[in-house]
Amino acid sequence: MGNCCEAICNVRKNTNVRVSLPAVCFVWQIAMVILFGVFIRYDDESDAHWEEFKEENNITSDIENDFYFRYPSFQDVHVMIFVGFGFLMTFLKRYSFGGVGFNFLIAAFGLQWALLMQGWFHALDPNTGKITIGVESLINADFCCAGSLIAYGALLGKVSPVQTLVFTLFGVTLFAVEEYIILDLLHCRDAGGSMVIHAFGGYYGLAISWVLYRPKLDLSRRLNGSVYHSDVFAMIGTLFLWMFWPSFNSAITDHGAGQHRTAINTYIALASSVLTTVAISSLSQKRGKLDMVHIQNATLAGGVAMGTAAEFMIMPYGALIVGFLTGIISTFGYLFVTPFFEKYLKLQDTCGVHNLHALPGMLGGFTGAIVAAAATESVYSQQGLIDTFDFEGKFAGRSVGTQGGFQAAGTCVAIAFGLVGGALVGVILRIPIWGDPADDNCFDDEVYWEVPEEEESIPPVLEYNNHMINKHQDLSESNFSVEQS
Amino acid sequence: MGNCCEAICNVRKNTNVRVSLPAVCFVWQIAMVILFGVFIRYDDESDAHWEEFKEENNITSDIENDFYFRYPSFQDVHVMIFVGFGFLMTFLKRYSFGGVGFNFLIAAFGLQWALLMQGWFHALDPNTGKITIGVESLINADFCCAGSLIAYGALLGKVSPVQTLVFTLFGVTLFAVEEYIILDLLHCRDAGGSMVIHAFGGYYGLAISWVLYRPKLDLSRRLNGSVYHSDVFAMIGTLFLWMFWPSFNSAITDHGAGQHRTAINTYIALASSVLTTVAISSLSQKRGKLDMVHIQNATLAGGVAMGTAAEFMIMPYGALIVGFLTGIISTFGYLFVTPFFEKYLKLQDTCGVHNLHALPGMLGGFTGAIVAAAATESVYSQQGLIDTFDFEGKFAGRSVGTQGGFQAAGTCVAIAFGLVGGALVGVILRIPIWGDPADDNCFDDEVYWEVPEEEESIPPVLEYNNHMINKHQDLSESNFSVEQS
Amino acid sequence: MGNCCEAICNVRKNTNVRVSLPAVCFVWQIAMVILFGVFIRYDDESDAHWEEFKEENNITSDIENDFYFRYPSFQDVHVMIFVGFGFLMTFLKRYSFGGVGFNFLIAAFGLQWALLMQGWFHALDPNTGKITIGVESLINADFCCAGSLIAYGALLGKVSPVQTLVFTLFGVTLFAVEEYIILDLLHCRDAGGSMVIHAFGGYYGLAISWVLYRPKLDLSRRLNGSVYHSDVFAMIGTLFLWMFWPSFNSAITDHGAGQHRTAINTYIALASSVLTTVAISSLSQKRGKLDMVHIQNATLAGGVAMGTAAEFMIMPYGALIVGFLTGIISTFGYLFVTPFFEKYLKLQDTCGVHNLHALPGMLGGFTGAIVAAAATESVYSQQGLIDTFDFEGKFAGRSVGTQGGFQAAGTCVAIAFGLVGGALVGVILRIPIWGDPADDNCFDDEVYWEVPEEEESIPPVLEYNNHMINKHQDLSESNFSVEQS
Repeated sequence: MGNCCEAICNVRKNTNVRVSLPAVCFVWQIAMVILFGVFIRYDDESDAHWEEFKEENNITSDIENDFYFRYPSFQDVHVMIFVGFGFLMTFLKRYSFGGVGFNFLIAAFGLQWALLMQGWFHALDPNTGKITIGVESLINADFCCAGSLIAYGALLGKVSPVQTLVFTLFGVTLFAVEEYIILDLLHCRDAGGSMVIHAFGGYYGLAISWVLYRPKLDLSRRLNGSVYHSDVFAMIGTLFLWMFWPSFNSAITDHGAGQHRTAINTYIALASSVLTTVAISSLSQKRGKLDMVHIQNATLAGGVAMGTAAEFMIMPYGALIVGFLTGIISTFGYLFVTPFFEKYLKLQDTCGVHNLHALPGMLGGFTGAIVAAAATESVYSQQGLIDTFDFEGKFAGRSVGTQGGFQAAGTCVAIAFGLVGGALVGVILRIPIWGDPADDNCFDDEVYWEVPEEEESIPPVLEYNNHMINKHQDLSESNFSVEQS
Repeated sequence: MGNCCEAICNVRKNTNVRVSLPAVCFVWQIAMVILFGVFIRYDDESDAHWEEFKEENNITSDIENDFYFRYPSFQDVHVMIFVGFGFLMTFLKRYSFGGVGFNFLIAAFGLQWALLMQGWFHALDPNTGKITIGVESLINADFCCAGSLIAYGALLGKVSPVQTLVFTLFGVTLFAVEEYIILDLLHCRDAGGSMVIHAFGGYYGLAISWVLYRPKLDLSRRLNGSVYHSDVFAMIGTLFLWMFWPSFNSAITDHGAGQHRTAINTYIALASSVLTTVAISSLSQKRGKLDMVHIQNATLAGGVAMGTAAEFMIMPYGALIVGFLTGIISTFGYLFVTPFFEKYLKLQDTCGVHNLHALPGMLGGFTGAIVAAAATESVYSQQGLIDTFDFEGKFAGRSVGTQGGFQAAGTCVAIAFGLVGGALVGVILRIPIWGDPADDNCFDDEVYWEVPEEEESIPPVLEYNNHMINKHQDLSESNFSVEQS
Repeated sequence: MGNCCEAICNVRKNTNVRVSLPAVCFVWQIAMVILFGVFIRYDDESDAHWEEFKEENNITSDIENDFYFRYPSFQDVHVMIFVGFGFLMTFLKRYSFGGVGFNFLIAAFGLQWALLMQGWFHALDPNTGKITIGVESLINADFCCAGSLIAYGALLGKVSPVQTLVFTLFGVTLFAVEEYIILDLLHCRDAGGSMVIHAFGGYYGLAISWVLYRPKLDLSRRLNGSVYHSDVFAMIGTLFLWMFWPSFNSAITDHGAGQHRTAINTYIALASSVLTTVAISSLSQKRGKLDMVHIQNATLAGGVAMGTAAEFMIMPYGALIVGFLTGIISTFGYLFVTPFFEKYLKLQDTCGVHNLHALPGMLGGFTGAIVAAAATESVYSQQGLIDTFDFEGKFAGRSVGTQGGFQAAGTCVAIAFGLVGGALVGVILRIPIWGDPADDNCFDDEVYWEVPEEEESIPPVLEYNNHMINKHQDLSESNFSVEQS
């Protein structure tokens, strides 16, 4: 292979991130330490002054600390972010390390920046100049990361770890701004984030991927697929996302019936998605065989699409219908839209985030608008309407029809932020300093990871070659070169 | 292989489910939408009228919504159903997709039908004609699916996805009826379902498998076993079942000490099962080697057997003894009873559900009967006896001895429903329209799944054959044939 | 290979555990039944007398049962012990069964013995002579196992299952004693166990491993490393540990703000560790590639190091700094300290527990001492200081400076117990009766497990050799030899 390989190597991009990756990690982590020092403090429910706070507010029991309302849901959301998204992205045969590992990196950085960005917009005390945080802040920070993780799904295998940190920095920033516009200025309701998380995150990733179009990605085609066990690993991700989606949508809804109803609606919608996904997947293949891509992804569409409406009185059959339709639409997306995008729009979407997040998120936003506009006092009760749509303060007089209009407008804002923001960030990511792989080098963990040598056939003791490099224990010359270099 | 293969193919059953699977999914899902529309509404604790309900019932804090008592346990149960049962069934070398995937399908359909069936029997408001649901309904729906998933364990690898949906429809129906008889008419206590879930589900699956006996199953023998990594995947299932079993048994027990005690007893019994399983497994093999089949399954027997008695005052040492004995019995079952069944009773039990569910479930039912009959007022307190056994209303005068008798009777009812119901459903499944595989074609994901080509040795870039079909991205002709056909 | 193999086999140690393993399991499990029968009862919150207890103590709602404060955290801790530690140890290419399986065995035995040992020291009622247990006891029992599981990390692949049970018996015993000295006599605070769990467990394992030094372990070098999929399995362990560490540290802290603040601090510290681990890992390798060993382990160091200080008012930026530094230190440990230990100290540490547990645990202990000594009434409030440091009873007059000193002393006690206890237990484990493997036979599941034959290339139907042994279904002669022998 001598000559050919050389020829390719010569034009191959420089994927050495030994300076840039540590530099970015250190700079950003040090910035976080400084900014946390200046801005972030505990809120009343997590501060050591809690006993005083309880007395002042006539709280009789520790169990009424918000921690006990939200911590179990928080942990479920946390599992979705790290194991759910992470393992869903292990499906590629040789990019499982990058799927789960860079997901981990993105989320661990993103949540710190999110605590700050969301804090400045939502929890900055004008008197003290401090942001106070509690368990709800942690949930929101995880949500905020979800936007960038969704975007990563479109880019999986085609970007360097430095690029992931760059688009996460901008992604979290954009998220905080669009969330402020949608939830505060437009006063939309979007507990599970159909609009602010899924539509935004999906279109953000698609726009970046469109700008980063790789005309010769076919050269990496041999690695852009799964093997048997990588598909089973991906099912770990799918199932943890599917099971905990009721917690995702209900994590920050109203205490009491609000959280309760949201969880029920999401549970029901997800069950419905599974059956229609199986139906369409079977219909689309020879002999009715199922495709793991559909089962891994489209079964989740019902959860995405219920992100806005789940806290409303959509009724159990309404939830079933939403799951029914989005399961179908999402599976059709994998069958037709992703190949169409790739062929005609020059848009390469590794995980098909268009079909799982962007489109169902948009549909979820509009579903929320319709359900909100159709709300009546007889169904919600007067107090129920006020609580559900937060018709208080300067929004006390808003009608449900108006609310529906604003919900629809909010969906458009999310999409616009995703598309425009993603296009701009894509341009930044094209600067040739980030160490991204060449077109024939994508979807390959070898580029950014020390990958263990495969030896399915383990040699017997005596034939064992002592020169073999043992990756886990023998940390020899190359490692010590930190000091030598 | 030309001629031989043709000869076999000619007699091979038609496993094309491209019409039947989508048809069944759509018909049943549409039926669910209609029935949910007619019958199912939110209960008082999840409805937007919650604030009114709180006032009427003098509930002072949102934290007393049943959601906060049960949602963490619900999510644990949910994980057991989808990841626990699902991954436990990935142990076969080439049926991991079918194990975790059809488990997903069964549960997603079953829980919808369970909400209706259990609702009609337990939560139908005679005035409005509506079923109201809350978090406890979701837990019960998951429990109800568990019965059919256990049955699937006996049939793993030998049935088509259409058949799984058929036996789930009947399984959930039978479950709801036997549950009504046992819990309501006989007034048994069975929080963790030793009787109604495990004994019923186990014998239901065994009876179906007996009717569907395949005399030439040996032809698929090469695939009826594990490989190294599939055994590790199965441990994911085992451990999530093992860890969350305390939540399973305590999920619907009484608020307060009831849930607390049930969780403790189950935790203790499970620990004991592990040690005796290891002991017997080691004793049974040459050189004392452990068998993964035992570790994956028999370690769970203590949880099954505590399903009834865990909420009683069985005492920690009582729980230890139950786990001790069932660990031994279950492991002996894998060693002797499953081979015996296969050889002499013509009963093929893929996962050995007899040893993990049917037998320990039955033993758990009788354990519950004995512990109930031995209850005394000094141990329980007067109020404790009333709460634990629900001696209220028309059962106010029942003695603990009588209760013990009814518990034993309930166990027999569960077994009878499983055996008779399973035999009848087995006959239905023999109708040759369901697309089940031939005897030499079992335990093989190729039959119902698009399986990625294995290429452990990934070819280098330049030698890569461009004609290779890429499963995940290139969705070409065969997929579009939905429209062409 | 005839002659050579014979030569080796002749000197090979006897790894037959068919007598010793079942014997130890049975003897110890029977001892547990007897001791539980004599000593262990339900506490007031899990006993059927709960309704009476509520009345006597003016508890108005079942939700104030400790179960609802701690059960979600308990389940998270439970997942860490069994899936977290278990899967983290599946990284070796051919010791995944031993990693996850013996972890299971250790924990299932250890928690029973821990309920007794911790009960005798902390919950023995002097009047009745009984230990009463509740959900907090279960959490503490899981914590106690963690010490022995950490020690197992240093010994992974080099000990027999009988040896794991022996060092667990002593490990749990030593743990209960050092915990009593540190928490009760010295009155330290150590909710997440930087000192009592991680420093103790880490040094305990290191001391045992030092005594059990194997000069010719290089003969097993071919198996002392990972393969691609085993590294992905290990990431399951890493992520569940990482995600649930906030629950680990907060599980037994004070109700209300105590649990809330501990969770927040741990969440923040862990995020910071990820970025500095990535930075150092990338810096240390050619071309900036990341090493899975670092990502799997050092990312967790922030959680270990926050085990003591997380419940204090360390402030979010303080938590970030702790995570920042320990991520760096732990990664450097993997790069330099483990190879140094192996080469110069004759200490073989399979999982590098020195870098993940021993060292960060010690640092966490001293961090706690400093943060405690720096506490002020203005930051904590008067009541907050009393609650956080439990300055009540005979410790009512202790100053924060004194407390800091005792915290530091406690750390030294934990280390001393680990080192001295481990050395003694190591001597016991050297007795040649435990069935440990020979130096050329380590890291190999074949020694203690029935391992399925690998057949990545599954033969076609007709060529299938009927004599092949099917492990999962065909339980033939060797199994029945229980009776024959």
